[in-house]
Amino acid sequence: MASRVLGARVGVLGGGQLGRMLGLAGRSMGLELQFLDPTAGSPAAAVGELVVAGYEDESALERLATSEVVTFEFENVPVSAIKSLEQRCAVFPGSRALEVAQDRLHEKTCFRALGIGTPPFEAVDTWEQLQAALVRVGLPAVLKTRRFGYDGKGQAVLRTEADAKEAFDRLGGSPLILEGFVRFQRELSIIAVRSRSGEVATYPLVQNHHEGGILRKTLAPAPAVSDSLQADARAYVEKVLQHLDYVGVLALELFDCDGRLLANEIAPRVHNTGHFSIEGARTSQFENHLRAILGLPLGSTEIPEPCAMLNLIGRSVDPRAVLEVPDAHLHWYGKEPRPNRKVGHITVRAPDVPTLDERVARLERSIGA
Amino acid sequence: MASRVLGARVGVLGGGQLGRMLGLAGRSMGLELQFLDPTAGSPAAAVGELVVAGYEDESALERLATSEVVTFEFENVPVSAIKSLEQRCAVFPGSRALEVAQDRLHEKTCFRALGIGTPPFEAVDTWEQLQAALVRVGLPAVLKTRRFGYDGKGQAVLRTEADAKEAFDRLGGSPLILEGFVRFQRELSIIAVRSRSGEVATYPLVQNHHEGGILRKTLAPAPAVSDSLQADARAYVEKVLQHLDYVGVLALELFDCDGRLLANEIAPRVHNTGHFSIEGARTSQFENHLRAILGLPLGSTEIPEPCAMLNLIGRSVDPRAVLEVPDAHLHWYGKEPRPNRKVGHITVRAPDVPTLDERVARLERSIGA
Repeated sequence: MASRVLGARVGVLGGGQLGRMLGLAGRSMGLELQFLDPTAGSPAAAVGELVVAGYEDESALERLATSEVVTFEFENVPVSAIKSLEQRCAVFPGSRALEVAQDRLHEKTCFRALGIGTPPFEAVDTWEQLQAALVRVGLPAVLKTRRFGYDGKGQAVLRTEADAKEAFDRLGGSPLILEGFVRFQRELSIIAVRSRSGEVATYPLVQNHHEGGILRKTLAPAPAVSDSLQADARAYVEKVLQHLDYVGVLALELFDCDGRLLANEIAPRVHNTGHFSIEGARTSQFENHLRAILGLPLGSTEIPEPCAMLNLIGRSVDPRAVLEVPDAHLHWYGKEPRPNRKVGHITVRAPDVPTLDERVARLERSIGA
Repeated sequence: MASRVLGARVGVLGGGQLGRMLGLAGRSMGLELQFLDPTAGSPAAAVGELVVAGYEDESALERLATSEVVTFEFENVPVSAIKSLEQRCAVFPGSRALEVAQDRLHEKTCFRALGIGTPPFEAVDTWEQLQAALVRVGLPAVLKTRRFGYDGKGQAVLRTEADAKEAFDRLGGSPLILEGFVRFQRELSIIAVRSRSGEVATYPLVQNHHEGGILRKTLAPAPAVSDSLQADARAYVEKVLQHLDYVGVLALELFDCDGRLLANEIAPRVHNTGHFSIEGARTSQFENHLRAILGLPLGSTEIPEPCAMLNLIGRSVDPRAVLEVPDAHLHWYGKEPRPNRKVGHITVRAPDVPTLDERVARLERSIGA
């Protein structure tokens, strides 16, 4: 095992900031990294070899397949590419998890089959099906494309019949899913990791704040979480991991509806709501993902003290103002700021929640959030 | 300031594991790194551009000088190279600190001038001077080359007149220093950092264990440190920083002689006895060095709970056995193991000292230490 880990090469489909942070964790452990991404100069190029090619480029996949293990940091890679790699080398997580995660209908059907609460949902391919589904699901509701949605894209909230018509005209070219509109108190997520040996570790629930469909802030651990809420979340994510025979880090996004958890979606990869873990947990999600896919023992997922993660979106910041806040750490992905683009994040810790709140408020002022 | 930090390039003389860890911290903050090292494939190549050339290569220095700021991770770079760079760009720490640190006689003279305790010492250039010095310093004593010593190289313990003759025959081609043999209880060090604005932060004293002149283990913080011992160490290192108008991280190695501290040497750079800080302190020495030389606010140097660092020397390890120990993290530098070569390190934390001791013992067994 030793010779296969120290100096081993990990292939990664996708070379964005998630790949870059995987690479930083991997380099620290002495791994070599090779990233496949269609975009030259992707953020991960800073920490490994970047192969610039399409995800289905056969010669690029051939190169990646010479790695000790292959993973992905982007969930919209073609399942066919993962299946092709699976014929040649170890790939974690595998194509099965990816197929489920790429399709909101499969995903929610999987939740339902596992006894995990979800909003009501129905598949919608035609205008007639939408009308029929609206009768059962009721208004308000959310119409979403089954595939390729992220950061609030590919979805519409329906409050009236007119909204439904307009949304169907816009989205109806793709297979759709209609979901009941959930009146939740807050959005939570749970990051979990399962290793090749079947060992599972889960981070505590975290609380997420979105604006315009984009994550702005995570509080870790989520405040005011009862033991039963934590246990429910853990049971849900463990069911998903087992069911998919999953290896690696997985995020499960949840709605907290008066203490009842409804599953929104899974991300079969390291996740933005887990970035706090670099400084905030005993083992970062990136290190644990690598440990899992290399068959190493998992690291502790404990969060020793309250912490928060703030996304930096669309514009630069003044590092001086950020780093003047006690125990704040600045992560910058080496991307050119553009509207709605995630260009970095800040982690901040504190001995108690009131102090954390103060520090977060100071940081939010400093970044104009 | 913002535009000069985010995406700024830092030039580094030396591309070893210290450069690699500086690079990992820098990449996380969005910095670009350029390393100058005579050896192709140096560890830092994993995290930045490696310019393979001698430290006095004029065109290589010219390239480095286009960085926002230049620093070094190896203290035996020629002072002339640093002086040449200082004509062209910001260099921290500067040539003055380097000159003092490169010469044990200057270093100890500096300690003496600042009122910092040292073992008795005398300059020795001839056999006659050595004989005269031995009369004043007494036996046992330690004869050292003034320059280019590291990991116990370039020194000899003298217990008899015969030892003195033999050591002088071996080392006498270089300028020497004779030091009194110190009967210390333990070896300590203190890592401190001073920023371009003059802000100073010091990590708590740590305790170091050497074998064969090579660091094997650091306990952070050092056990059983009285407030006055901590205050003395802090006062000493702050005097050195101010005196040298120092910018960046500096390590001061100390002997603890029944609660009286004697200064052994300084290292004008990030230091092996500070590696614990990656997981063990709120801000790592690498992040703080970069913050300091870029003129950013320094990060907290607090050590929240007991931790230890174990060096991996000369041979490979079984990562599985290491990572099975709770809260252990493995760092591997991407070097081929060779006798006495530092190829990686392990950090481990624990809620209390007895638990830490147990974990360290387990790790020592797993690495055959």
